[in-house]
Amino acid sequence: MSSLIIQCKKLRDAAKVLGIADTKTKNKALANVAKRLRIHQEYIMQENEKDVFNARKAGIKESLIDRLRLDENRIEDMIQGIQKIIDLRDPIWNSDRVWTLENGLTISKMTVPLGVIGIIYESRPNVTIDAFALALKSGNCILLRGSSTSIHSNRALVYAVKEGLKESGLPEEIIGFIDDVDRSVVMEMLTLNEYIDLIIPRGGKELIQFVIENATVPTIETGVGNCHIYIDERANLKKALRIVENAKIQRPGVCNACETILIHEQVASEFLPQLYKQFDGIVDIMGCEKTRGIITVKTAEEQDWMEEYLDYKVAIKVVQNIQEAILHIDRYGTKHSEAIVTESLENANLFLRQIDAAAVYVNASTRFTDGGQFGFGAEMGISTQKIHARGPIGLEELVTSKYTIMGNGQIRE
Amino acid sequence: MSSLIIQCKKLRDAAKVLGIADTKTKNKALANVAKRLRIHQEYIMQENEKDVFNARKAGIKESLIDRLRLDENRIEDMIQGIQKIIDLRDPIWNSDRVWTLENGLTISKMTVPLGVIGIIYESRPNVTIDAFALALKSGNCILLRGSSTSIHSNRALVYAVKEGLKESGLPEEIIGFIDDVDRSVVMEMLTLNEYIDLIIPRGGKELIQFVIENATVPTIETGVGNCHIYIDERANLKKALRIVENAKIQRPGVCNACETILIHEQVASEFLPQLYKQFDGIVDIMGCEKTRGIITVKTAEEQDWMEEYLDYKVAIKVVQNIQEAILHIDRYGTKHSEAIVTESLENANLFLRQIDAAAVYVNASTRFTDGGQFGFGAEMGISTQKIHARGPIGLEELVTSKYTIMGNGQIRE
Repeated sequence: MSSLIIQCKKLRDAAKVLGIADTKTKNKALANVAKRLRIHQEYIMQENEKDVFNARKAGIKESLIDRLRLDENRIEDMIQGIQKIIDLRDPIWNSDRVWTLENGLTISKMTVPLGVIGIIYESRPNVTIDAFALALKSGNCILLRGSSTSIHSNRALVYAVKEGLKESGLPEEIIGFIDDVDRSVVMEMLTLNEYIDLIIPRGGKELIQFVIENATVPTIETGVGNCHIYIDERANLKKALRIVENAKIQRPGVCNACETILIHEQVASEFLPQLYKQFDGIVDIMGCEKTRGIITVKTAEEQDWMEEYLDYKVAIKVVQNIQEAILHIDRYGTKHSEAIVTESLENANLFLRQIDAAAVYVNASTRFTDGGQFGFGAEMGISTQKIHARGPIGLEELVTSKYTIMGNGQIRE
Repeated sequence: MSSLIIQCKKLRDAAKVLGIADTKTKNKALANVAKRLRIHQEYIMQENEKDVFNARKAGIKESLIDRLRLDENRIEDMIQGIQKIIDLRDPIWNSDRVWTLENGLTISKMTVPLGVIGIIYESRPNVTIDAFALALKSGNCILLRGSSTSIHSNRALVYAVKEGLKESGLPEEIIGFIDDVDRSVVMEMLTLNEYIDLIIPRGGKELIQFVIENATVPTIETGVGNCHIYIDERANLKKALRIVENAKIQRPGVCNACETILIHEQVASEFLPQLYKQFDGIVDIMGCEKTRGIITVKTAEEQDWMEEYLDYKVAIKVVQNIQEAILHIDRYGTKHSEAIVTESLENANLFLRQIDAAAVYVNASTRFTDGGQFGFGAEMGISTQKIHARGPIGLEELVTSKYTIMGNGQIRE
């Protein structure tokens, strides 16, 4: 029996205890973990320093090292994140569907935990705490597989979590951590259907593709966002400029940032020069032929319509009408977040109905697709698939259901 | 480009039309299909006769041939099934979660179709019509892959469906049929993530395992049911006898039939002789040592606790208490349907909370786990996995969601 299976068996056993724990117990455990993060703050920062040192030695670029670093403020943010999750409603053992059959059987569709959730992540160490806290509150055990870059930080965080759990009367095996940088362990993890109920990959395209291709455990695809903003013929161009600027510049490296702007030809000659002025020296513009007839920018190639730049770079296309915009999004979009800027009710409705994406906006920045912004407290990632959960994965998405049926001797005729 | 991909592209295009069709149009199309089934009844029966002839020639046993056969009554049942689905509420573009953020953005979680659903089935030809009708009403296109045994019947049914669609103003490409008995086509189907949003295998264990192992398209596992009934110390034994008899005998070949009976040792000596009398000459009993101390039956081996007999056969185990019953179910159950017979509120609640299954019963037969019985009209199968849908898969389970966000120029600070 592999060491991963031994660990998974413990998670399964812990899941039975956690799955029926009451809200008070779960919140107390979360509070204890928060307390332990504060107590062990120095230790966590020391261990994090090792990761930062190694990353610098490996020549990783400063912007990524900055994401990796943990200081007092960031640890305080984690603690505040836990507090938010404590304040959220317990998503377990609720029902919005109870009905009674002619024969007197009463059926309730109750929410119950999934059991054991695996998460494979490349991102910042705070994911370790977010994922654990969301899982615990929703009654799920969590198996973490972080990146080798942050292994010391994650180890220290998991240590603090376990210390917190120990004083809470809940098994410390609620959290599992794969302390092995070998990729073959990930491969094994992806096929442990008996022990893991759901795997969420959170990271780049390559990681997600690897997980989809190799997993037999059910997965939720997250993250890749080639998001569009369509400026309609009937747009308020002042709003459009604010929205586009926000969606592109406020934080370009994230999945809900805007990558392509589509502009109705009737407003292109008025809008594009304003946009050009706004983006000048900040955002690199790749334009279609019609765009290049109005402003002087580089040529957008086929590749530009497909790419998630995650950078100060944007592609612009002038379209004949809303249908061309919808067709473009249908062809190149990744079903993440799409927006229309318009004052026309008809066009707003058309866009809302016809665009197939996790989040569709009218007159707002795509940057709002986020568990925190949506009011979910935190998120496990943003699902871009249609099964089980779509959009930000918060507490309410980390459950499954169980039909409970109350009878008095009913049999089937 | 393979012929399957060509067909899938047509399904994808049809899904765009169907996805935004109104309820009236969808119901009219279903009514037209029902009408066509009646018009083409003779043709369908003729084609079915070929399948029956081939099955008999291949030496398939009569009980299976009976499942394959279509007569006037069975075609009438299909038509009634469509009528039931017409009468159900349209599951699309509804919301039970609408909220407004501090900044004024209003978020609605709307139900939308999945898109294209694939179904791989070994069962009776009526699944062809059930699956199509459920898919259409929920705005989804359907790609059918039936068994070679029923290929002539399925072809004829799909012909009638297409005739019905033609007079409805909806594309006939809403329904796709894999008219190829080669298994390699199934293999291809399982990896067409770009074209298929969900695959539901409906059939035996082997088929389901094959699909789970090979699919990159998200799947919903269905069907295998090793269901238990636990007769508690506090059971009303009269009720218990009725329930056990119904769950075992009423239709033993289905997934919600009872396969193992667990009996509290305090009531075993009273209950077992009654059960023995009831089952004598009808049901073959395999008992544990304690059972064999009370009634004269064959010995239950380890294999008996694991097996889904699907036959007039049952395993019986005497347990010391409810915890032993729960542990047994946890170890051998397939998370389908489990029941307790008890008059104790405490034990009922313990069982409901601790048993991890799609449906958990108190004082009722497990045979009720069924879309029709639950009031869903029909079902695509019964999910025994936890992701997306658990239990009977009806209209409400064939949807995904889309967040629509209405703003007035909001940007993220």
